[in-house]
Amino acid sequence: MQIGFLGTGGMGAAIARRLQTAGHEVHAWNRSPGALRALVTAGVTAAPDAAAAAAQPVVFSMLADDAAVFAVLEQGGALAAFKPGAVHVNMATISVAAAQKIQALHVQRGVGYVAAPVFGRPDAAASGKLHVLAAGAPDALTRVRPLLEAIGQRVWPFGDDPVRANAVKLAGNFMLAAAIESMAEASTLAQAHGVAAADFLGLMSETLFAAPAYKTYGALIAQRRYEPAGFRLRLGFKDISLALTAADATVVPMPFASVLRENFLDALAHGAGERDWSALAEVSARRAGQGAGS
Amino acid sequence: MQIGFLGTGGMGAAIARRLQTAGHEVHAWNRSPGALRALVTAGVTAAPDAAAAAAQPVVFSMLADDAAVFAVLEQGGALAAFKPGAVHVNMATISVAAAQKIQALHVQRGVGYVAAPVFGRPDAAASGKLHVLAAGAPDALTRVRPLLEAIGQRVWPFGDDPVRANAVKLAGNFMLAAAIESMAEASTLAQAHGVAAADFLGLMSETLFAAPAYKTYGALIAQRRYEPAGFRLRLGFKDISLALTAADATVVPMPFASVLRENFLDALAHGAGERDWSALAEVSARRAGQGAGS
Amino acid sequence: MQIGFLGTGGMGAAIARRLQTAGHEVHAWNRSPGALRALVTAGVTAAPDAAAAAAQPVVFSMLADDAAVFAVLEQGGALAAFKPGAVHVNMATISVAAAQKIQALHVQRGVGYVAAPVFGRPDAAASGKLHVLAAGAPDALTRVRPLLEAIGQRVWPFGDDPVRANAVKLAGNFMLAAAIESMAEASTLAQAHGVAAADFLGLMSETLFAAPAYKTYGALIAQRRYEPAGFRLRLGFKDISLALTAADATVVPMPFASVLRENFLDALAHGAGERDWSALAEVSARRAGQGAGS
Amino acid sequence: MQIGFLGTGGMGAAIARRLQTAGHEVHAWNRSPGALRALVTAGVTAAPDAAAAAAQPVVFSMLADDAAVFAVLEQGGALAAFKPGAVHVNMATISVAAAQKIQALHVQRGVGYVAAPVFGRPDAAASGKLHVLAAGAPDALTRVRPLLEAIGQRVWPFGDDPVRANAVKLAGNFMLAAAIESMAEASTLAQAHGVAAADFLGLMSETLFAAPAYKTYGALIAQRRYEPAGFRLRLGFKDISLALTAADATVVPMPFASVLRENFLDALAHGAGERDWSALAEVSARRAGQGAGS
Repeated sequence: MQIGFLGTGGMGAAIARRLQTAGHEVHAWNRSPGALRALVTAGVTAAPDAAAAAAQPVVFSMLADDAAVFAVLEQGGALAAFKPGAVHVNMATISVAAAQKIQALHVQRGVGYVAAPVFGRPDAAASGKLHVLAAGAPDALTRVRPLLEAIGQRVWPFGDDPVRANAVKLAGNFMLAAAIESMAEASTLAQAHGVAAADFLGLMSETLFAAPAYKTYGALIAQRRYEPAGFRLRLGFKDISLALTAADATVVPMPFASVLRENFLDALAHGAGERDWSALAEVSARRAGQGAGS
Repeated sequence: MQIGFLGTGGMGAAIARRLQTAGHEVHAWNRSPGALRALVTAGVTAAPDAAAAAAQPVVFSMLADDAAVFAVLEQGGALAAFKPGAVHVNMATISVAAAQKIQALHVQRGVGYVAAPVFGRPDAAASGKLHVLAAGAPDALTRVRPLLEAIGQRVWPFGDDPVRANAVKLAGNFMLAAAIESMAEASTLAQAHGVAAADFLGLMSETLFAAPAYKTYGALIAQRRYEPAGFRLRLGFKDISLALTAADATVVPMPFASVLRENFLDALAHGAGERDWSALAEVSARRAGQGAGS
Repeated sequence: MQIGFLGTGGMGAAIARRLQTAGHEVHAWNRSPGALRALVTAGVTAAPDAAAAAAQPVVFSMLADDAAVFAVLEQGGALAAFKPGAVHVNMATISVAAAQKIQALHVQRGVGYVAAPVFGRPDAAASGKLHVLAAGAPDALTRVRPLLEAIGQRVWPFGDDPVRANAVKLAGNFMLAAAIESMAEASTLAQAHGVAAADFLGLMSETLFAAPAYKTYGALIAQRRYEPAGFRLRLGFKDISLALTAADATVVPMPFASVLRENFLDALAHGAGERDWSALAEVSARRAGQGAGS
Repeated sequence: MQIGFLGTGGMGAAIARRLQTAGHEVHAWNRSPGALRALVTAGVTAAPDAAAAAAQPVVFSMLADDAAVFAVLEQGGALAAFKPGAVHVNMATISVAAAQKIQALHVQRGVGYVAAPVFGRPDAAASGKLHVLAAGAPDALTRVRPLLEAIGQRVWPFGDDPVRANAVKLAGNFMLAAAIESMAEASTLAQAHGVAAADFLGLMSETLFAAPAYKTYGALIAQRRYEPAGFRLRLGFKDISLALTAADATVVPMPFASVLRENFLDALAHGAGERDWSALAEVSARRAGQGAGS
């Protein structure tokens, strides 16, 4: 199948490559063309501009945030290039409001819209281990489902309203950040009583919390190893902000999310924006006087 | 071996029984004697009073809280009955300050003291699946370690200061409560966007959070099934209070723990003290206007 | 002087009238014309449309929020009607980002911009008791200063960057909301110990807290008298959201503001949006089981 | 009248002196006798021990905390020295639980008990400007009321249960700490937008917040002048802890108090325990990267 792909950063590139490996012809575009070179070597076609990528019958996008999405769709001319009957699969973590607006723009022009955010880091994408959340009109979803299955280990459908997949993604990322903060506070308390963070977090992530979220981030926190970033703290703050905005719109108090907001800001004010978001744990240590330079 | 056992509520009874099954002669005592009957039928000896149980060479205790521990040790006469050279294995979740005081009392009289709190609910105790944290003087710990291994699937040693095992237990229970609150807020947000809590929590606990803590409590929250209580909310509040007190004493800010404190109080004020502590999730739903009778 | 006035709700009408009483010819416009009738009777001229009001040499505006401001300026045609050399005095509590954008739009066309948010409720406006915060280019500010002095008991200048006046207004409204929450929690605690809220809040607002903020809201909370609203809770939530957004943009953690956000959402979810914002106090009472219908 | 006085630190000394100036014979005792010298010069009698002071018909005490009170009453022998019919006026900020226990001990021996905590700093005590909260059995209260009126500018009775006066004092101190935190967050936000803390806090404490609490602490925060301490941060943390404990016992969620708890711990972990408690404001500045050495 001919597939357009908008946005080939770390995650986007890994996904585009899996589609190509699965036998599709992928026409990829990226704002800074450097990110395309390795893909082209691997057999992906470089689209001359965003509109050319958007003119394919199925178009994936993996762009950084709301602003990037609208920059490409509106100023970049991609929106007008979609053909009636095409399907746009948007994998980015964007706001609920943006998802609603994009869907409305497409509906006017007879373009299908599927929200398909994913759980997993770039290495999971490369090895086909992503979990793909998917929501959208049934016919559009049916059409792209085989492609989503080629990308991930499992597709989790959430009905015909794309917004639901976005809300699930934001709620899930909130849970990940909450797990990081929870490990941070608990291991700071343990350390204050003479128990090394590695011993404490080792116990927890082998027993009650023997799950990927705790194993991955527990190890990074115990070793204070925040570089290179798997997912940048600045983007983690963005996602918590999106979760809080979605909570405002639906009148849901989220006190843990508010604590996360405060602590992300503390981390940003102390220069951690480009570190892995598990560096959130340093806030807890620093406030207790345990941090480097606290 | 002759073993004394003080406190045979749900957890205590299951553990006493495992010791008896492993070939030891267990002399058990409980404040309300009704709880002993089933044990006696199973072959455990009923001690006539707390002092008789405390006169054995190794004495386990699993009492509800600091007050219960001191009531049995001091007013109940158990403390004076310990023999020099005996070892007291205290499995209760008590305060760090109480652990320090009990250890000091025993040291004066030549009695060994091992703190051995556990992770696991009564059914895990019955089937030998507990995780046992253990800290205390090396000789005392060496002597009781085979007994701890008979009780649990694994023993996690934390050095010679008993307080460390208590701190680890409190930090771990804090992480459990934080997981409950995290699922509560996230599923309230998902529900507000039209996604059923069961669908959302099902996804999370099969993927990033595929661990016992999330599977167990995620199912209870999704079904709003808080009775019968595996662990009562009133005791969960007690444990968060102990964690906060330990944090005060070591000057550790714990904002998530403070949010949990507020929400446990909200739950208690709305009559949930005797429910399972996963009923904490109802606070989130009620505040968002989703609760029954919110 | 000829003065345009956009937005004559409760606050706007009271201010427009003071300008007219001070001898100026006020050309007022309001989206729903009903709000103009009483003003016209009092001698104010009804402008036929927003553009006619905006064509005066000095133009005041008091519109509800960012969206209303842009609706009038852009869709409503007011922006294009401003004359070079005119001064726009914006009294609304708007976001810092909106203030920056409006200023930029005016600068392009040679129009002066003064941000002049106020502290005080409509009765204070009617009696000239407002405190007026003012920031903007020195020449524009100098020109409108006598008008601001006619409106309020005192003008507080904050330099030439309009954004500063907006930030001060948001920080001040945050302090008011924090005072309400503080009284709510403290009087809930006092009541739980048998001390009537009126007795407790009476003591505090006659002694350490003998200030307008505490006297005004303390009395409303003690009497649980939230209607009619002097300032609607829904708008209070908006202002806390604007403060949090300004804090995000400048990387400032504000944990009290986050607690206020959660409690405003709780109040909104329980139907208090149109009550006076001191009804925030009911959240505290309800969570403690003291509320009506808690 | 013959009056005993236990505890002549800063506040105690000022109050003892006022009683002496009002014509009473004051028998004062203090743990470290150095604090008595200046009082003796002023005409106060030095009691040879705590029991001698406690043997007077009316006995005031102003001791640092629960532990100090029980050390003097029990280990120090004061309790047994009280005469039947005497009245004990306890001015310290102690826990609700301690107040209940002391009252019970006195009732057994026919001694009256009045809780009389005060609002005001030592200079207010010296000039008779304290506000005295008072609760206790009517006959005891009637008997000591003229003495309380000699000490303060006004006596605020709260009925016959001494605990009420303690609860009011804790709720009031919570409100003071909340005012400090509120000013800290708001002025950090203002500063981030280019407005000096002194300008912002000056405006607020001359207008909506023109009250002693805001004027006093607003000036200290604006000048970052935390030494010498009028009231030490360490004691402020103690009082917030007592408020939280009283809230626990009566099932009252207090999210602002929990934020204060976290921030006091942060301040303590950064060495501010002996500074004035308005140094709490430095936590806000440091977290935002505005602090000295943040």
